[in-house]
Amino acid sequence: MRFTSEQRLDDGVVERGFTLGEVPGILWTPGSASAPAPLILLGHPGGLHRMYPRLAARARHTVAEGFAAATIELPGSGDRPRLATVDEARADLQRALAAGAPVDGEIVDRLVLPLVEKAVPEWRAALDALLALPGIGGPVGYAGGVIAIGVRLAVVEPRISAAVLFAGSYVPRSMFEEARQVTIPLLVLLQWDDEGNDRQMALDLFDAFGSREKTLHANMGGHTGVPGFEGDDGSRFFARHLR
Amino acid sequence: MRFTSEQRLDDGVVERGFTLGEVPGILWTPGSASAPAPLILLGHPGGLHRMYPRLAARARHTVAEGFAAATIELPGSGDRPRLATVDEARADLQRALAAGAPVDGEIVDRLVLPLVEKAVPEWRAALDALLALPGIGGPVGYAGGVIAIGVRLAVVEPRISAAVLFAGSYVPRSMFEEARQVTIPLLVLLQWDDEGNDRQMALDLFDAFGSREKTLHANMGGHTGVPGFEGDDGSRFFARHLR
Repeated sequence: MRFTSEQRLDDGVVERGFTLGEVPGILWTPGSASAPAPLILLGHPGGLHRMYPRLAARARHTVAEGFAAATIELPGSGDRPRLATVDEARADLQRALAAGAPVDGEIVDRLVLPLVEKAVPEWRAALDALLALPGIGGPVGYAGGVIAIGVRLAVVEPRISAAVLFAGSYVPRSMFEEARQVTIPLLVLLQWDDEGNDRQMALDLFDAFGSREKTLHANMGGHTGVPGFEGDDGSRFFARHLR
Repeated sequence: MRFTSEQRLDDGVVERGFTLGEVPGILWTPGSASAPAPLILLGHPGGLHRMYPRLAARARHTVAEGFAAATIELPGSGDRPRLATVDEARADLQRALAAGAPVDGEIVDRLVLPLVEKAVPEWRAALDALLALPGIGGPVGYAGGVIAIGVRLAVVEPRISAAVLFAGSYVPRSMFEEARQVTIPLLVLLQWDDEGNDRQMALDLFDAFGSREKTLHANMGGHTGVPGFEGDDGSRFFARHLR
C-alpha cells in the first residue's frame, strides 16, 4: 500500500489517497489520534472520481461517528483498464431497459459475476493493508451498493462483522444461495421507486439472507434519493455491532 | 375527563389513569414541569390490563424522549362491554386460521370496520381532552397497531402530524383507498415472520400510502418480537416531525 496524497478536510478528517498494486483507493480517518477506530468499507458502483462527492460525504459522516472509512476503485471502472465483457453486458442491459424489455438473468450474470470474482479479492487485500495501519482496528463493516459484492464479502471474509447493503443493483440468481449463507447482522436499504432496480427481487433477497438480525429500511424515491436520516441509522447500526 | 389514579414511577414519569365518559385511559407525562410536550397516542390491540406492561414500557421510553404519551381502551375490550359482532368475527377468524384456511376479506371487514368506526371518534374525543391539559401541546403523533385505526385517524384527524404504524393486523381491502389519502410522514413497522399477519398485504399497504415521506422497517421474528432499537428509531422519527 502506497499513499499518494494526504489532505486535512475542513472538519479535521484526514483523507489519504493510496494505491494497492494497481488499485487506487481512499482512506478517511479521524484528525486526532485516539483508540483504534473500527473500519467501514464503503462500497460504490465504480468510478471514484465520479462518485467522490457522495463517497466523501458518507466518509465524513462515518468518521464523525468514530469510525475509519475506506474505499477502492472497482475493476474496469475509473482509471482502471476496462473489462470488455462487463462493458458489453452493461450495454446489453441498457438496451434491454431502453426497450422496456424484461432484464434477462443471463445479462445480469455477465455483468455482475465477473465483477464479484475480481473485486472481492481486491477488497480483502485492501482489508489486510488497512488493518495493518496504526489507528485502525477491527471489527469491520461493509456499507454500500453493488450488493452482490457485499454478499460475497459477507460470506467469505470473517473479519466483516456487519453490513449495510444498498439493494439498488441487479443480483445474479445464483447469489441467492450465497445470501442464505450470510449470518452477520444486516441493514438492507431499499429505494421503493428505484427505476433501475427490481423491488420484488430486493424483497426476495432480503428474505433469503440467513442472518438472524436483519432489518429492511425502505424509503420513497429513486436510486439516488436515500434520505439523509438513513446515514444516521447506518451509523447507529454499526455502533451497535462494531463497538 | 376524570382522573382516577396518579402515581409517580421510579424514573419520575407521572402515570395517571382517567375515564372519558365510559372509556378508560392512561396518561404518562414528564415528572418535572417543562415546556408543553408533544403528545404521542399509543395504539394497541385492546385490553389495557393485559397490554399494560408493554404499553408502560413504550410510554416511559416515549416520555424519556421528551413527549407525553396516552392511550385509551378499545371498544369491546378490557372492562368495556363486549361487541358481539366483533367477537363473532374474531372467533370466525381464529377458526379459519386454525384450519389453515385463507382469511376471508368478509371476516376481516366484520372484525375491523366496526372497531374503526367506534374507536376513532373516541380517540378524537380523548385528543380534545388531553390537549386541553396543561403541559401537553401539539403536534400529535400516533404510534401503534390496529393499523386500520391509525390509517383512519391519519386521514380524518388533522392534529395528527406523523404516525408510526405497526403492520401487524388485518386491514379491510376498502381501507387501501383510505391509505392513499394519508399524506403525513409515516414509519411503518413490519415483522417479517409475523404468524398472524399477511406480509404481502402489509407491503401492498405500505405501497398504497399517499405520504411523500414514508419509511418501512422490516425486522425478523414474530408479532411480538419487534427489536428494542425500533423504539429509538420511532422516537427519532417523531423528534424529526413533531418538534
